[in-house]
Amino acid sequence: MKVGLDVGGTKTDAVAVDHTGRIVARVRIPTGWGADAVTRTVIDAVDALAAEGMDRAAVRSVGIGIPGQVEPGTARVVHAVNLGVDELDLAAAVGPTLGVPVRVENDVKAAALGAYALRGAGGAHPATMAYLNLGTGVAAGIVARGRLWRGAHGTAGEVGHISIDPAGPLCRCGQRGCIEALAGGGAIAERWAGAGALPVLEVFDAADAGDPAARQLRAGLARGVGAAVRVLVLTADVDVVVLGGGLTALGERLLADVAAELAESAEASPFMRSLRLGERVELLPPGSPAAALGAALVGAAGEAQNETEETLVHG
Amino acid sequence: MKVGLDVGGTKTDAVAVDHTGRIVARVRIPTGWGADAVTRTVIDAVDALAAEGMDRAAVRSVGIGIPGQVEPGTARVVHAVNLGVDELDLAAAVGPTLGVPVRVENDVKAAALGAYALRGAGGAHPATMAYLNLGTGVAAGIVARGRLWRGAHGTAGEVGHISIDPAGPLCRCGQRGCIEALAGGGAIAERWAGAGALPVLEVFDAADAGDPAARQLRAGLARGVGAAVRVLVLTADVDVVVLGGGLTALGERLLADVAAELAESAEASPFMRSLRLGERVELLPPGSPAAALGAALVGAAGEAQNETEETLVHG
Repeated sequence: MKVGLDVGGTKTDAVAVDHTGRIVARVRIPTGWGADAVTRTVIDAVDALAAEGMDRAAVRSVGIGIPGQVEPGTARVVHAVNLGVDELDLAAAVGPTLGVPVRVENDVKAAALGAYALRGAGGAHPATMAYLNLGTGVAAGIVARGRLWRGAHGTAGEVGHISIDPAGPLCRCGQRGCIEALAGGGAIAERWAGAGALPVLEVFDAADAGDPAARQLRAGLARGVGAAVRVLVLTADVDVVVLGGGLTALGERLLADVAAELAESAEASPFMRSLRLGERVELLPPGSPAAALGAALVGAAGEAQNETEETLVHG
Repeated sequence: MKVGLDVGGTKTDAVAVDHTGRIVARVRIPTGWGADAVTRTVIDAVDALAAEGMDRAAVRSVGIGIPGQVEPGTARVVHAVNLGVDELDLAAAVGPTLGVPVRVENDVKAAALGAYALRGAGGAHPATMAYLNLGTGVAAGIVARGRLWRGAHGTAGEVGHISIDPAGPLCRCGQRGCIEALAGGGAIAERWAGAGALPVLEVFDAADAGDPAARQLRAGLARGVGAAVRVLVLTADVDVVVLGGGLTALGERLLADVAAELAESAEASPFMRSLRLGERVELLPPGSPAAALGAALVGAAGEAQNETEETLVHG
């Protein structure tokens, strides 16, 4: 049995996965703020899985996906600003209490592995896949034949800071017209006058009602996502781009905008048309356990219980 | 002994490589036009190597890099427009005459493998590397731990058709502001009024002399190359980007422009600064045999004479 946790800014999603890859227990608990509270959240989440009937004694590993940089080859999380964590060795912090090996991975990379595993559940693994996370920021994880593409410094997939318009909005990174400045939930919320809890949903509704500022923001979101899809397909030649993250709660409304954007570029360019981008984009289903499942696969990377898992988890 | 050929639009570069990876013979001959003449060129190039002292009987494989699409898993070249070849099974055409296994690869991908091999000659292989070819068009090959990243359809590295400016020049692909529309030698030549044999060199000289149109074209070249470097580093997290192709005959003049462009984006953005892009860009030395050497490695892919070669050539 392996446990996987997706530690999010507000909630932590936890799953217990049996040796066949099936999720046998799942819980969601609020995430604490700051290094100590995040450590406590991880321990509480494992306890909550046990309370749901998971056999604690059968747990062989815990994997944790976390929104921050994870130093390659370590469990050291740095700059997890959404969690109030500046620096934390999460394996060292929770390992003694949990009593099993703990591995930590960036949450988007973990979700990419999980999305790949879920997509292949019917035996239809794509050769290569990107998971494009649309949340406060924009970033992707790339998986080829079950392995994460990490790159030289573990930062592969950081497509959010590719500029696609020198006259575009200023990005918090200092550049203009970054994909994230157009399509990041944080950037959209900053530029939207409304103050509700779901600013991007408000933007979509206001755009439908004809508000010009909202229409512009909404069009920018589609442009940014379309550009990210093109970058991922052209650079890494991924077969499929799976969209996930908070903004995908917009569901078909978001997907329809992205499809229209991709159709427009296909109309202008026979080359783009030949890539059939519209057919390659998919939404992760709402409530998908991809991120926690991927974390469980990361956690089990040291075990190599069987060939399939070995392939699925080694980066 | 393995033979590698880089079939270019005007010249074909051929090398014979011994089992230690050393180039023991090298020739250059003009490339013929059309399928029959290209076939003849390949046979002539191998003959020319033999005339230079290569032991024909010791040749175990021939690899060919060619500027066109090569259908994955085949030796079928399609759309090699610079060679006047619409479709050609090159292995079938030359195999009976050469009498050894023949493999064919897109020339940029072959050059990427060769550049990786050359760069690691002193034992300093980067973990991941991109070879960015600046010729008539712009395309890259990505190598990780000695293996080509091919992607789902063999088109990974096609960064030339990523748009970085919706108000940029029209690209022959139909989009606006593609990297290739700014940095492709073909696109620059089309927009430059001069009619010399080396239009991009003319553009550089005219820009130095203060010509405004030339300065704009030259700045666009640097912008396009800078953007390609950023895309390759952010998406694939390659450690090094090696620049090659016809335009790199401009040498340090080109590299200085690109370095200035990267320095400018680093100044605007702490995030970009942290990537130290300027330190990651290198020029392939003039006259480098990278493309032919890479083709030789591709050709020997079926042999697996030793562990190193196995690693170097399998895609």
